[in-house]
This record gives sequence, structure tokens and C-alpha cells, in this order.
Amino acid sequence: MVRYAGGISRFIPLRRANKDSSTDWVLDKKELECLFNSKTKIIIVNTPHNPFGKVYKKEELAHVADLCKKWNVLCIVDEVYEWIVYEPNEHIRMATLPGMWERTITVGSIGKTFGVTGWKMGWAYGPANLMINLQMVHQNCIYTGVAPIQEAAAIAFEKAMTNLNQKNCVFKSTSKELIVKRNYMAKILCDAGMEPLIPEGGYFMIADWTPLESQVDLSSEKDKFKDYRFTKWMIKNVGLGAIPPSAFFSQEHKKQPKY
Amino acid sequence: MVRYAGGISRFIPLRRANKDSSTDWVLDKKELECLFNSKTKIIIVNTPHNPFGKVYKKEELAHVADLCKKWNVLCIVDEVYEWIVYEPNEHIRMATLPGMWERTITVGSIGKTFGVTGWKMGWAYGPANLMINLQMVHQNCIYTGVAPIQEAAAIAFEKAMTNLNQKNCVFKSTSKELIVKRNYMAKILCDAGMEPLIPEGGYFMIADWTPLESQVDLSSEKDKFKDYRFTKWMIKNVGLGAIPPSAFFSQEHKKQPKY
Repeated sequence: MVRYAGGISRFIPLRRANKDSSTDWVLDKKELECLFNSKTKIIIVNTPHNPFGKVYKKEELAHVADLCKKWNVLCIVDEVYEWIVYEPNEHIRMATLPGMWERTITVGSIGKTFGVTGWKMGWAYGPANLMINLQMVHQNCIYTGVAPIQEAAAIAFEKAMTNLNQKNCVFKSTSKELIVKRNYMAKILCDAGMEPLIPEGGYFMIADWTPLESQVDLSSEKDKFKDYRFTKWMIKNVGLGAIPPSAFFSQEHKKQPKY
Repeated sequence: MVRYAGGISRFIPLRRANKDSSTDWVLDKKELECLFNSKTKIIIVNTPHNPFGKVYKKEELAHVADLCKKWNVLCIVDEVYEWIVYEPNEHIRMATLPGMWERTITVGSIGKTFGVTGWKMGWAYGPANLMINLQMVHQNCIYTGVAPIQEAAAIAFEKAMTNLNQKNCVFKSTSKELIVKRNYMAKILCDAGMEPLIPEGGYFMIADWTPLESQVDLSSEKDKFKDYRFTKWMIKNVGLGAIPPSAFFSQEHKKQPKY
């Protein structure tokens, strides 16, 4: 979309600091600073992160925010997993950082918020002067907004708002339900000999399968990247589907070690 | 979309042959022939036509089909109003013409077929070799397909198929219900001094408002095209919304007389 609009897109990957939870995958500060210059218009940030499950800490977001303010850059922040965050992690909204509301467009999703991913509806919010421009686009994409789903979403929000401070509010209860499944899934992967990255938020879990490398014969798969070869082998030989993480990286970063 | 894909789009407007029903708006045969050459890849046809309500006759479609075959051109045909056709008019599917199935992709819509325009779901069908290419695109647009609506559409089709040959089958009954409203609407427009084009199919009715021109003062509206000025005047002064037809024309054809 950036390229269609005549822009130049530049990418920064999460890089592994230490080996433990998804906290240990970080943006390199210097690398990020080098990507900002007087031509920079927008940065797109995603927290909680898909697919790594990283929930950015306040100081990490503050570093991005400082660069946005220094270079007068807008921020589009994908916070669709805002309500799927596992304790003790805490989701910080980019728009709540000092000076960021006026330059941030925040994106959310009913699919993720209410556990109805097939319902395909989301929203964007931000300051009025930025929303005016989004409204121009909106009239040309509103035809993907489904009326009965909009009605359902409005009712779901109304219900959730009535018990906001209660334990069973969907905004709180989803993460509590899913953390049990997260831990169960991590155990299965460990038992199978993989090394899962424990997600701090979101629906997905990344696992390092390379400890199993000597036990699998990928020679029948011809894909360029090893993770594609492994996931294809796994679906054919184990009957288990997974997404190769390199699909999420830009061309230049697909060759990162060990994902 | 054609331009994004690096193609060149050329347009042909319906032109008024005589003044009566929407039958009298036609494609000029010579003009159409001149648009085909060895570089032509695809023609996009829409029948029943939105917004003119024209239902193409078999010989009109056959002329398009002959050109497609002569120049080895694919046809994308928007037939979303296939079940909204007013007697005695009859919808002819492009893909049923000799030699056309193998070069035609037909587009349909549950919104139009079942009267649920807010449900935003459609389909495309064609020969297997063309569908393979559509499937490539499909994986990148499937996220606008809403699961509960897909289920509802499947059930609606199953129900309609059980009473296909009966009067109350939705494929037949919608047009019978709407023709009464079409005639009522035409009378209202005539009574108001406009000259409606009686649609042969579809949801819309075009009306020539220029007989009222001397009675309205459009000087407060600054749009380039007169139909925009009139529709804005009408919504402000009469409280009635309409779509200026020039919005449907390509830049070069917006200046056609009297639409």
C-alpha cells in the first residue's frame, strides 16, 4: 500500500536480544533511529505483536514516540490484540504517551476483542484532523462493512461496557481463559522437542523447531526458506499446520537466524 | 485497478439512441469495435446495467462476444442484478453464449440476489483455468469474507434451490415485488415533472430533471457538473437524495448530453 501510494517502505525486524520469552525480541534502538529522517511520514507499529506475541514496554514505545515527535512523523498503531495480554504484562496504548494522541491512528478489531475472527470488522480512531483524511478513504472501503455485524459489534460493546470493572467482562476474561491454553500449548511444544517463545499477548506462538532438525528429512521440499520446508514437511508427515515465520518478514530480513 | 496492474483502461459509454426506456441506451457498434486491438486483454461488461437499468439483448451481447473471440479477449461480466429483471425483459448470461464460457468470469452478489445489500458478499465463477488465477487473488481478499454471512448465504441458496420452479422462489419473486415499486416511482417522478428512464432491471432509476431547469436556482452550487449541482440543490431544498449520474462515467464521457 505504501508503494502504491508512491511511498518508500523501510522495515525493521525484531531482533533476538536473549533467548527466553518474547520480551527478548527487541527493536534495535540505533537501527530504528537510522530509519528516521526528514522524509519520513509514518511509522506502523504493532503491539501486542503478531506473530511474536511481544507486548511492548512503556520505555520501548516511548523511544518510538520520541522519534515520531523529533521527526514530525505520524504513527499508525495496530493494537488489535489490546485485550489479549497475559499477566503480568500490560498493554500500553501508543496514543496515551505524551504528545502522541495528536499524531496517532489506533486500529482495533472486533474479531480479536470478542473472539470472532471470522466477523471481519475493525475500527480506527485518532484526532479529528487525521480522521478527516481517513473518512475520504472510508467511503471507498465501507462496502466491506457488513451491517448485521456492525449491529452485533455495537451490542457487544454495550454489554462489555456495563460490566467493565467486573472479572467476567470480556475485556478481562479472554486473556484469563487463553493463558491456560497458552501454557498447555507451550508444554506440548516442549514435549515435542521444540523451543516455544512464550507470548506475552495475542493468539500465536512461535516455536524454534531446529532442535528437531536432525530427526526430519526435508529434502523432498523445495522452498527457498527452511521454515517453509519444515512447515510443509510437518503438515504432510505429522498432519499439523503452522505458519512459517519468514512469511512475516520483509525480503531483506527473511534470512534472520533462527525463527 | 487496471491502472494499478500496469494496464490501460479505455471506456465506452452507453449512448442514447432514442428517447424511451433504458433499451434506447446502447453501445455504438463501431465505437466498440474501435476499442479492440491485439493488445486488448479484458472487457468488463455489466448486465443488467447499473445505474441505467438496461438489460442487454442477446444480439447486443453476441456482438461483444464476437469481438472477444475475434481478439482473444477475456470477459468479466458483472451480473449482480441477474435476478432483478422486469418482465418481459430477460437476462442472458454472457457465459452461455457460444464460445464464451471458456473466456468469461461471471460476478454475482448475495446482496442483490437476496435483497440484503448490507451483507456484502459475492462470488465469481468461470472455467477452471481462469479460476486458478482468481484463487491467487482470493487468498489476499478472503479477509473481507464474513463467516456467519457465508453460512447464511449458503442456507439462502439451499432454500431457493428447493423451490426453483415455484412462483415464490426468491429468484422470481423479487422482480415481481419490485416492478410495482418501479412503476410507482416512475409515476412520482413524472408527476414531479422529470422524465424517468424506465429500468428493465436493477435497483436504480435514472431521471432527466432538466425539464425543471427553469424552476430551480442552482447558482449557490459550485460543482463542475450540472447534475452534481442539481442533486446538491435537491438534497438541501427538497430533502431528497439522489446520485448524479456523471459519477458513473469516465472523465472523458462525463460531458455527454442529458443524463
